[in-house]
Amino acid sequence: MTAFPVPTMPAPPVSVVGLGQLGGSLAAALAAAGRPVTGWDVDAAARDAAAARGVRIAQDLDGVVVLAVPLPAMTTALDGLTVTPDATITDLGSVKGPVLRALGERWGTRVVGGHPMCGTERSGHAAVDPALFTGARWAVCLEEDTELARWLRVAEVALAVGAEVVPVTAAEHDDAVAAISHVPHLLAAALAEAAADAGPLALGLAAGSFASGTRVIASDPAFVTAMVEANAGPTAAALARVLAHLDRPWPALVAGGHAVATRQTGRREVRVPLERAALLSVGRAGGAITRRLAAFVEGWMPEVV
Amino acid sequence: MTAFPVPTMPAPPVSVVGLGQLGGSLAAALAAAGRPVTGWDVDAAARDAAAARGVRIAQDLDGVVVLAVPLPAMTTALDGLTVTPDATITDLGSVKGPVLRALGERWGTRVVGGHPMCGTERSGHAAVDPALFTGARWAVCLEEDTELARWLRVAEVALAVGAEVVPVTAAEHDDAVAAISHVPHLLAAALAEAAADAGPLALGLAAGSFASGTRVIASDPAFVTAMVEANAGPTAAALARVLAHLDRPWPALVAGGHAVATRQTGRREVRVPLERAALLSVGRAGGAITRRLAAFVEGWMPEVV
Repeated sequence: MTAFPVPTMPAPPVSVVGLGQLGGSLAAALAAAGRPVTGWDVDAAARDAAAARGVRIAQDLDGVVVLAVPLPAMTTALDGLTVTPDATITDLGSVKGPVLRALGERWGTRVVGGHPMCGTERSGHAAVDPALFTGARWAVCLEEDTELARWLRVAEVALAVGAEVVPVTAAEHDDAVAAISHVPHLLAAALAEAAADAGPLALGLAAGSFASGTRVIASDPAFVTAMVEANAGPTAAALARVLAHLDRPWPALVAGGHAVATRQTGRREVRVPLERAALLSVGRAGGAITRRLAAFVEGWMPEVV
Repeated sequence: MTAFPVPTMPAPPVSVVGLGQLGGSLAAALAAAGRPVTGWDVDAAARDAAAARGVRIAQDLDGVVVLAVPLPAMTTALDGLTVTPDATITDLGSVKGPVLRALGERWGTRVVGGHPMCGTERSGHAAVDPALFTGARWAVCLEEDTELARWLRVAEVALAVGAEVVPVTAAEHDDAVAAISHVPHLLAAALAEAAADAGPLALGLAAGSFASGTRVIASDPAFVTAMVEANAGPTAAALARVLAHLDRPWPALVAGGHAVATRQTGRREVRVPLERAALLSVGRAGGAITRRLAAFVEGWMPEVV
């Protein structure tokens, strides 16, 4: 691997709109790495917190413009801000299809959707952590009309803060996150409510399995509701699959769930040509593009696991 | 509180049968506190590990005899062992009704059921942790025919290792743990299996909400299956309540679940007379008996929260 040339793709500036947990962490991580990063937030306290971490606070955005705002604010977040004509627009939203359709109406193929699979039940600039993305998977959308050069710019930002990039289509992403994120939020809510129905004794005895099973529903309910409603179709389908499993005999259900939860996953390095179908096949196989960007200049992704 | 007399109830010896995660942790915690503790396990490696922590390994059991074995082994765990005639028998099983009925046939009112609400998805003597019970709730059964003196002996053991004692009936316990422990195991299994159905991309994007939602199903599947099948009725009822919540509109479900998961719980100290109905009312209110045993000699529980 050391035979590959040093990266020659210049790292573009990054502008982050929304400096809460995700956006603030991204801006802070880039600033800590010495990258030029501009940030903006409607909340002065979030702006001040980001400025203290070395983020330039301004309303003129350039390079890779990252929308790190709640889903309902996605289409209006750039109102009143200046965006350079060649900037690439990406976002960190938890649902991709509806967001890309809405942003595409205004920004066309300058939009590349993204979704880092991290963050906690906490939110806001007080929850900023520059290490938040280290080792996380970050879905970056490769639609039929996505410009590969713009996709690479967004992928590079994700890799720069320690994430691994999963090439996906928006539709595939939305089906997948319904199963592994949106449905877990609904299950957590139903588990919490049913335990409350069972009464104070049940809540008084609640321990580890209840705490784990309900953790994510401590998230901001407005955020969770916007997420599941924006991805209603895939979430309903994924929930139906869960319900079907709950209808099976318990010994088989327990054995099958245990096998999935304790599966051994290995990592192997493969080479993939830098073109859409091959990149998407990496994501579909459960893999990701890792940090060695050197091969981009060769037309190859050297490390895919 | 300092006006209460120093405890005068002599601490009885404790004998632990089964030296895996729960039994081994209990024996180790008692030994570390300088209490005489005897242990036994059919597995020589578990015996050796306990002996290394100061536990006397022997087959003659005395005082409070704790059955810390899997549910299917509960009625045979004492076969071939010697139990003194006045010993009190308790257990750490995750289901109480069936266990108490089975043990009662042989041991009558010498049995007091118990269930510490701790332990992790790990098991066996390698998972022993003397601090496992610190701050945990420990249900101790007060049936109509329970001898209060024996109940106190079992409660004292729980308090001695840092737990808080929740007085319950077996039936109340089984309904409560169905809601906060047994159903979470089934939900975790169904969530894991449904994510596997969604494919490698979904598992490749899985992050915090999936990890939390499926953690408990990493537990030994034989243990989980025995638990849910031994508590089938209450578990099915609790699962039905979860399913009913999942059928509600998502915004209401999310808001309600969030309210339960983030509820603020305070602690207040109350005094409760040392009699069954009053003690049970503490558990039903979500409270527990805490460590200051001094008041036992006064006929009062000074600290109940």
